[in-house]
Amino acid sequence: MPQLRKDPVTGRWIIIATERSLRPHDFSTEMEGHSFIPAKCPFCQGNEHLTPNEIVAIRKENTEKDKPGWQVRVIPNKFPALRIEGDLEKRGIGMYDMMNGIGAHEVIVETPDHHKSLKEMSSQEIGEIITVMQNRIEDLHRDKRLRYILVFKNHGVSAGASLSHSHSQIIATPVTPKRVKEELNGARRYFDLKERCIFCDVISQERDSGVRIVYENEEFLAYCPFASRFPFEICIIPKQHHHHFFEMEASPTSLGEIIKVTLIKLSKALKNPQYNLLIHTAPNLTSRRGYWTTINEDFHWHIELMPRLLRTAGFEWGTGFYINPTVPEEAARYLRNIEVNI
Amino acid sequence: MPQLRKDPVTGRWIIIATERSLRPHDFSTEMEGHSFIPAKCPFCQGNEHLTPNEIVAIRKENTEKDKPGWQVRVIPNKFPALRIEGDLEKRGIGMYDMMNGIGAHEVIVETPDHHKSLKEMSSQEIGEIITVMQNRIEDLHRDKRLRYILVFKNHGVSAGASLSHSHSQIIATPVTPKRVKEELNGARRYFDLKERCIFCDVISQERDSGVRIVYENEEFLAYCPFASRFPFEICIIPKQHHHHFFEMEASPTSLGEIIKVTLIKLSKALKNPQYNLLIHTAPNLTSRRGYWTTINEDFHWHIELMPRLLRTAGFEWGTGFYINPTVPEEAARYLRNIEVNI
Repeated sequence: MPQLRKDPVTGRWIIIATERSLRPHDFSTEMEGHSFIPAKCPFCQGNEHLTPNEIVAIRKENTEKDKPGWQVRVIPNKFPALRIEGDLEKRGIGMYDMMNGIGAHEVIVETPDHHKSLKEMSSQEIGEIITVMQNRIEDLHRDKRLRYILVFKNHGVSAGASLSHSHSQIIATPVTPKRVKEELNGARRYFDLKERCIFCDVISQERDSGVRIVYENEEFLAYCPFASRFPFEICIIPKQHHHHFFEMEASPTSLGEIIKVTLIKLSKALKNPQYNLLIHTAPNLTSRRGYWTTINEDFHWHIELMPRLLRTAGFEWGTGFYINPTVPEEAARYLRNIEVNI
Repeated sequence: MPQLRKDPVTGRWIIIATERSLRPHDFSTEMEGHSFIPAKCPFCQGNEHLTPNEIVAIRKENTEKDKPGWQVRVIPNKFPALRIEGDLEKRGIGMYDMMNGIGAHEVIVETPDHHKSLKEMSSQEIGEIITVMQNRIEDLHRDKRLRYILVFKNHGVSAGASLSHSHSQIIATPVTPKRVKEELNGARRYFDLKERCIFCDVISQERDSGVRIVYENEEFLAYCPFASRFPFEICIIPKQHHHHFFEMEASPTSLGEIIKVTLIKLSKALKNPQYNLLIHTAPNLTSRRGYWTTINEDFHWHIELMPRLLRTAGFEWGTGFYINPTVPEEAARYLRNIEVNI
């Protein structure tokens, strides 16, 4: 059983993988990553037997579970960081705190085609992936042990992807992750002061000034944040206020369109960079509704998109204090001026 | 002038390098890093003219500033992230906050020998480097604009080092970095509750249980933290309580010894891994003494040592929630059992 352990000073939770603990000699091989040819890629159509049984899929009519004929397929992670069975058993070890590593870890295979990346899919196809993500979050929210559902995508080896076939991951955790909690608390503090959503105010200021805007469509805005941590970092946010991604009122195809356009712009500017994409949504309110009384007013879901262009050095790790060598307004201007026809 | 910009939601400060803002085409070259041969290495003895003028050095008698004859040499960073001249000029841009990127950015060249790494130096030589670090911190503390002085070392290209010649860096900032502030606040909360230093309690529990200890000498303890974020992560801490590294009562040679032994153990276990080393010390108390009234009692300086064995993926970036595939007790046992004769 994996463990969740809490750092006593900062309160940060860590997952410790206990079942297959990596020893020193594992790291030389670990560094090289995997590079499957399609015949053996477990995410390719025809290789469904190489993965755990599917949780859900978008499939053609009259096709069978765990057989070809799907467009998007969700499966449990074969090497999960957290396990769904069991109790949390929160406990202390002297002054330290820990609990069992209960949670879910799933993979969304975004296409049956080994060579197709997200930006090469149509807006509607990306929209279908988004709908699958929303359905998985809604389903996992029923489990009251799970406090937060994180959806993220690693594209490329530097960004942490172990398989090149296009996929995203879902990790559901019994604690709210630290970075997300900081956002939730920051948004609540602002709401307490102003009685307005801080993200709505950011959208309004960004649209007024225009200097950090990358692209917008009717329902979404893509911009480089004022205090971007990384060069060409982008935030994609719905213009209409909503705290929960899975309940969003905007059209999934419209979100698909802005993701596609933004990825094409990044790709043209930076020669197909590796990237991480993360959805920051509200925590699972069924697990502790009392605490987040104003969250529907004070939090606003959004996507963080971070190209991996630089090695991150010790300074950033040790301090949480980033040095960004590209001015966000210049990054935005560059991306804004790239023409995209889809 | 570089800028310090504050993220409006989380309150995190970012340095934006404005003077030589990297454009898209800069990143392909940036990725490759530098690899100097000694003849052109600006940190090698005889090449002092390739660096800015030295700030301080440990030198043989009767040798000249900026000429050979030194053992440890401190110079301004040629491409500083922050500038020492000017005023902070704190200001708002609509809802956003920023100030000028005032601060210091220095390099400590740890040896005149291009091929000698920290673990190959004697305990006493490392002790001399430590004394130089302490002197630089003490000196920079006189500048009341500077709130925090961070000393760190990147060893290896993955860890962010741009030059292979052994060196450390000092960055002095006008704000306390987020991760450090979290530690300071966590330590103070614990002190408010218990009237004891949390780090002293950790030391006591670690020495009682012994399972996470890597090495100890009379004055220092090296252990794998209970909630390690990374495989083989190590904390080196003085057994005697003190909040400030630069005022430590322990002997620099003793600290040099535990650093040397720990690095040799890591090197034997993990085949000379790249690593980051960071000194977490108290902030500059002359800059705002009122705020940190109990800091001499509640904070305890220490060193974080993180081998860079895994790529960090989107999940960690987006959440601050780490997955560590190596059980800290196993890492400690492995390192503890490696014999080192120095």
